Amino acid sequence: MTDLEQALERAASAAAALSRIAPRLRAAALVAAADALDARADELIPVAMRETGLAEPRLRGELRRTTVQLRLFAEVVVDGSYLDVRIDEADPDFVLGPRPDLRRVMEPVGPVLNFAASNFPFAFSVAGGDTAAALAAGCPVVVKAHPGHPELSRRVADAVAAALESAGMPVGTLQLIEGQEDGVTALLDPRVSAAAFTGSTTAGVHLASLAASRPVPIPFYGELGSVNPVFVTPSAAGEADSLAAAFVASVSGSAGQLCTKPGFLFVPEGAGLDAAISRAVSDVPEHRLLHPGIAAGYRARRDAILGAGGVSVIAEGAIRETDDGTYATPTIVRTSLRTLIEERDALLDEAFGPLSIVVEYPDPAALASVARDLFPGNLTATVHLAEGDPEASLPALIDALARTSGRVLVGGWPTGVAVTPAMEHGGPFPATTQGGTSVGTAAIGRFLRGVAYQGVPAALLPPSLRDDNPWRIPQRRTPRGASAAWGTLTGVGTSEVLPETTGVEA
Amino acid sequence: MTDLEQALERAASAAAALSRIAPRLRAAALVAAADALDARADELIPVAMRETGLAEPRLRGELRRTTVQLRLFAEVVVDGSYLDVRIDEADPDFVLGPRPDLRRVMEPVGPVLNFAASNFPFAFSVAGGDTAAALAAGCPVVVKAHPGHPELSRRVADAVAAALESAGMPVGTLQLIEGQEDGVTALLDPRVSAAAFTGSTTAGVHLASLAASRPVPIPFYGELGSVNPVFVTPSAAGEADSLAAAFVASVSGSAGQLCTKPGFLFVPEGAGLDAAISRAVSDVPEHRLLHPGIAAGYRARRDAILGAGGVSVIAEGAIRETDDGTYATPTIVRTSLRTLIEERDALLDEAFGPLSIVVEYPDPAALASVARDLFPGNLTATVHLAEGDPEASLPALIDALARTSGRVLVGGWPTGVAVTPAMEHGGPFPATTQGGTSVGTAAIGRFLRGVAYQGVPAALLPPSLRDDNPWRIPQRRTPRGASAAWGTLTGVGTSEVLPETTGVEA
Repeated sequence: MTDLEQALERAASAAAALSRIAPRLRAAALVAAADALDARADELIPVAMRETGLAEPRLRGELRRTTVQLRLFAEVVVDGSYLDVRIDEADPDFVLGPRPDLRRVMEPVGPVLNFAASNFPFAFSVAGGDTAAALAAGCPVVVKAHPGHPELSRRVADAVAAALESAGMPVGTLQLIEGQEDGVTALLDPRVSAAAFTGSTTAGVHLASLAASRPVPIPFYGELGSVNPVFVTPSAAGEADSLAAAFVASVSGSAGQLCTKPGFLFVPEGAGLDAAISRAVSDVPEHRLLHPGIAAGYRARRDAILGAGGVSVIAEGAIRETDDGTYATPTIVRTSLRTLIEERDALLDEAFGPLSIVVEYPDPAALASVARDLFPGNLTATVHLAEGDPEASLPALIDALARTSGRVLVGGWPTGVAVTPAMEHGGPFPATTQGGTSVGTAAIGRFLRGVAYQGVPAALLPPSLRDDNPWRIPQRRTPRGASAAWGTLTGVGTSEVLPETTGVEA
Repeated sequence: MTDLEQALERAASAAAALSRIAPRLRAAALVAAADALDARADELIPVAMRETGLAEPRLRGELRRTTVQLRLFAEVVVDGSYLDVRIDEADPDFVLGPRPDLRRVMEPVGPVLNFAASNFPFAFSVAGGDTAAALAAGCPVVVKAHPGHPELSRRVADAVAAALESAGMPVGTLQLIEGQEDGVTALLDPRVSAAAFTGSTTAGVHLASLAASRPVPIPFYGELGSVNPVFVTPSAAGEADSLAAAFVASVSGSAGQLCTKPGFLFVPEGAGLDAAISRAVSDVPEHRLLHPGIAAGYRARRDAILGAGGVSVIAEGAIRETDDGTYATPTIVRTSLRTLIEERDALLDEAFGPLSIVVEYPDPAALASVARDLFPGNLTATVHLAEGDPEASLPALIDALARTSGRVLVGGWPTGVAVTPAMEHGGPFPATTQGGTSVGTAAIGRFLRGVAYQGVPAALLPPSLRDDNPWRIPQRRTPRGASAAWGTLTGVGTSEVLPETTGVEA
């Protein structure tokens, strides 16, 4: 048996075992995984620095985000509202005829294959958001390591797998595989029930099409490309120095290798930010790019943008090859809205690295259609406005951005993604392949499927659906007779029964 | 401009307009559509009878189910919990550093293309479950009419479109297109954001692959094939007459042309049901099949099953061709579990029509693995057991059925799908292409996407996310400081704020 075959076999067995483990134990295992990573921070951070070129403060923050994420998902598991429990009481008076007892709960989909990202070696990698969400859902996870940080991936996988097993989770709850070939083989294997991916649009589209073409297709949750436009209204364009400094900081952090890096800054014609941007860029030290593939891709996109007609350079930046990798400083260019439209083939694609395009627009009333036509799918879109901004087209712009992106910001910068219940880190294609957020507690929904139980005696029901509610989770009940009022616009007639704070624990 | 082009253009405009209409108005429009259909029942039922061959009581029941469904979705809209509103208060003490106000709501995906089914000319057609769910979500719907009931489709579309417009919905909220070519063209059109389908596995797989291969892929929610196995434990096999009568009724209702028809009945060896089944079948009158395509498919599947080795006929049934269509009486065959495994290629596929296979099994302990290995994806699975059943393998069987189907029944029969909050009418492939129920209130989730608003002033927020909560919907709030407790397994710290029962109405 190959290592891959063993991993898939173990994942399949773990799926059955894991789904029968009580939520509190699964939650405690997630906390144990977080503790194990925090305890090994001083060992892991230097490995991550060496393999990715990312700076220590960034990596320490990212590891903390990763362990907070595991702890948050532990709370989600205990809370139980993600199970969306619905109980329709048996109803002899049901409007369409007598109806048996019907109960529905979200159950884990089965083994999840997670293609790790290069740019977040902790938070979107072995023990990152997709893994945390899938484990919280009750799914075993097979992570395909990103080749950009293999040693870190193995160490994190060892630490997390050991912590999960010590906490009582089955063997095979978290496993690592390596290499593109094994990743594809696993994606096509019938034992894999869903896949998650963070990476390039090219690779993501290819893998998504493989997932869709299987004899049994599976969902493929890919987070691909995003250019995160930022729109500055005329009344907000005045503070050139602070605007330029914050813009350059957001573009250059982690050498611009973030899914949420602002790739476009729209400013009114004649906003005159060049000098301020140029000054801000001169303060940014060079930063190593993650790996040769990203360096090559960045160089190609940067060449295409610099070579497009009607583009002027504000700060050209440098790209320096060394034995230790490729180093870059930020490149910022300026163009007009008209040129952006004319040169859209050269300019619109994501440039993954420290580059951004300042676009001067003649009239803010045009921005809503710019958003709709040129930026149809993004993770984020941002508007900078002044307090009491008189710009009449703002509501239309916000509306357009909400249709074309997953997160709309007013003020601030899109880099920095909070791990909280209300986060959405997904968006229309190509931001994500089929919707669903990969950050925040709603991410768990991607790895669940609904199952209804009709007329099933309590002894054979999952604990989540029992009237005695041993897991003490929210249950929404539709009482008999509720259907008589449907059509009166008074509500479905379900009521949420919150759990007792004390009681039996399973 | 072609009719199709006009329909797609109208759907795109309607999407923007519809998303700005207050929920109460949208809900009232759904009720108006239901009223319009109820008012035209005496006109519509005869058309449906003529075009489908289905019986009047069945069609009257189905129309009632369809209008109840619209009324239920109106309640879902008013209730607002489907919006899953999450409000994370700005938090200077957030565990990963100060965090702005973040609010998330589910918004409509945009125009939905709904491929109507042949077998439910009301409930899974022009104004059926997919349409009701999509309209409730705030999405305009383009229905591709099923060619089996064109006149009925046009009349229903006219009635519903007029009712929706009279109730203030934009032109293009519900539209009908006809013909396979227009259906495919629409599926590939960039203005369509999601598709729903109920029909054959062959057609569904083809359309799903088209949806996945678009430059911008869209979700394709197909409900395809299901054989709905029923397992009778030894202690429940005693009541031969009542078991046989109920089984035959479930197999032959609507001439077996139901997605939930039990295609397999597992009984203990020597259960001796043949005579009782034969008697029950002899009472079933012949029934017209829906259309020539279904008749041809049924004949082919029936021939394959009758021609397989090791299959004996309990009731052979008849197929009679007339100028008015093809008529059939039920065919029930019997085989052994061993033969079923050996002849799986001939026997396991769905036979859409009044045919079912009785399978004698030697040992109930084998049924869980039978379910997993032979029936990996079904809408339903049923177990018949006696009260206090001593069968030790029952929990394993229920567990296997919950992994391989969307609805697990104990007792009763899978035909007859309640339209309620806890229904799940979906299941692992090929039951559905990518999960998600097409019946019940959870069906709305397929046509929504999450959008987060970060730091957005109240005046620019959607009403659902405002602190003054003008739509009076549930909002889940995470207060500042909640993150300090993450990892203590006391819960996420969000709390549901239910709406005031009186207040401003938007």
